[in-house]
Amino acid sequence: MIQQVSLCIAGFGSASKAFCHMLMQQHQRILKDYNTDIRITGIAGRSKGSLLDPGGINLVRAMEEMTASGSFSRDNPQYSTHDTLHIIEGSDANVLLELTTLSILDGQPAISHIETALLKGMHVITANKGPIAWDYSRLKKLAEAQNRLLLHETVVMDGTPVFNLVNETLPGCQVLSFKGILNSTTNFILEELENGSSYDETIKEAQRRGFAEADPSLDVDGWDAAAKTSALLNTLMNGQITPPDIERTGITHITPEEIKKARDQGFKIKLLCEGWFENGHVMGRVHPVWIRMNDIFSTIDATTSLLCLQTDLMGEICVVERHPEIEQTAYGIFSDLLTLLKKKYP
Amino acid sequence: MIQQVSLCIAGFGSASKAFCHMLMQQHQRILKDYNTDIRITGIAGRSKGSLLDPGGINLVRAMEEMTASGSFSRDNPQYSTHDTLHIIEGSDANVLLELTTLSILDGQPAISHIETALLKGMHVITANKGPIAWDYSRLKKLAEAQNRLLLHETVVMDGTPVFNLVNETLPGCQVLSFKGILNSTTNFILEELENGSSYDETIKEAQRRGFAEADPSLDVDGWDAAAKTSALLNTLMNGQITPPDIERTGITHITPEEIKKARDQGFKIKLLCEGWFENGHVMGRVHPVWIRMNDIFSTIDATTSLLCLQTDLMGEICVVERHPEIEQTAYGIFSDLLTLLKKKYP
Repeated sequence: MIQQVSLCIAGFGSASKAFCHMLMQQHQRILKDYNTDIRITGIAGRSKGSLLDPGGINLVRAMEEMTASGSFSRDNPQYSTHDTLHIIEGSDANVLLELTTLSILDGQPAISHIETALLKGMHVITANKGPIAWDYSRLKKLAEAQNRLLLHETVVMDGTPVFNLVNETLPGCQVLSFKGILNSTTNFILEELENGSSYDETIKEAQRRGFAEADPSLDVDGWDAAAKTSALLNTLMNGQITPPDIERTGITHITPEEIKKARDQGFKIKLLCEGWFENGHVMGRVHPVWIRMNDIFSTIDATTSLLCLQTDLMGEICVVERHPEIEQTAYGIFSDLLTLLKKKYP
Repeated sequence: MIQQVSLCIAGFGSASKAFCHMLMQQHQRILKDYNTDIRITGIAGRSKGSLLDPGGINLVRAMEEMTASGSFSRDNPQYSTHDTLHIIEGSDANVLLELTTLSILDGQPAISHIETALLKGMHVITANKGPIAWDYSRLKKLAEAQNRLLLHETVVMDGTPVFNLVNETLPGCQVLSFKGILNSTTNFILEELENGSSYDETIKEAQRRGFAEADPSLDVDGWDAAAKTSALLNTLMNGQITPPDIERTGITHITPEEIKKARDQGFKIKLLCEGWFENGHVMGRVHPVWIRMNDIFSTIDATTSLLCLQTDLMGEICVVERHPEIEQTAYGIFSDLLTLLKKKYP
């Protein structure tokens, strides 16, 4: 007997599209390996339009419309004018995929999307770091009270195992501290400045390649890195912290002259995220650091990222994501979906 | 109701001792978190003597004897003169820990220890790469037929998640190829030669620090690296290959002059392990390679190791184990034990 599992997608940017492509490619494999027919019953795309049909959205048609015009067609019989919360509630889905864009100021409206879904008995997979950076402890408790899963592998380093690495493969280990290079835009800017490009040229190129936000201040002022640091502290080190609690220095004051001076002395400048315990409390910091050229952190170029964890029983281990594309973000969401199928729909 | 799980340990070198220390430290935590009382009912230590008692060995006394004299005392009432296979069979244990030293020629006698244990209905945790490099496919099938687990996280990179990384955190992903620096002794030798030490001095220092074998040819001729390459191909890429099938070049022909020449041109020489598919078959190679100094592989110093996996859905990710000690080997065995408790004694 084949089981049906239905998804509602909130937010329809590039990661959502890449996820839908991956889902269509892998549909038969999930049917075979997990005995599960995945369908999508709601998509809340705001300016791109929304689709709603508890009987299952025609994803082929939806993706064709999106490719053709960048939005869902009002002629589509599954088109809906409801707002995101109504789409989530009306979708009758088993799982919410919270893929809206990050609001760094408060994690909203993603937090209320997740709350609504959990209270309705849905599992939640989020690629949005806001809720995890701002309100993880409370949302986690709510999920547990509802006997539902809240999965968020994509929040740091796309689909590279970070949270699952600790939870699934380091049993009995306590994370004591971490260091990482986790923001692609600033990493790319610092590298391009070293290569002689100007700040403005570099930002434009990062936006063109799709990894910098329209508003670059989220990246260059260290807010994105602070949100990831907060998310890691909350999930891996049992913290209850928010992005403004992270000591934060961005890269806007770094001049090409300072970068050249560092290079001449055998260093690179990298924006480092750090987390640790101090007097029983979690602490976090984001700041540019001079790193010696033979250090592993100095080799993390362009969109590559690195996270090193110091643990009690397993010493220090690191994970590296090399040169990811949007498919690796899609895979993070997809891997959470397979984790969910394994744990809750065996 | 507290459950009892009993272990039999074959081989009592430094990793076994470190594991026993970790087990004693973590005993209360396992009792609390897993509701399980772990006891050891057999230790087969060959030249160090053996202990056997299906009712449970007095581990405190055993470790005191080992610390005092380097072997178990013949006055110990649990002392046994049986050979390893008899200890395994007589221990009446739930789990065999196969921790004997590697026989690179054929993977024996570890393979027969594992077979004996599986046929007797025991789960098996091995830190010995021989059986996984030589005979994984058959042993895995035997374990499945017996409905028992065969766990081997420690075989490559100690307790750093490698096999669990792929199996537990990259669901639906196929490993397409890998590259790694996986042998500490050769990595240390190449680095020390670069620093001006002699070959013989360096080998002695590596032996003194405990990571080089008494017979250095296993390391410097690339056999240890080939066994790890074979183990990775067999487990992650469904191979049926043995160490002699790996194309293998060691480091004995590398001169200080070549290392200096490489350095002058901005390269380091590293012994690289590689695995890939060719015409539907797995292929493996171990060979010294010139690596550019800004490449992540060039920063892997001393006993640090690195494995980069190329996958179909998740692109390229790497794991790094930085400066491990023997406790990290012990943790690999310990983490397999916790995995076993979670999966088979929930």
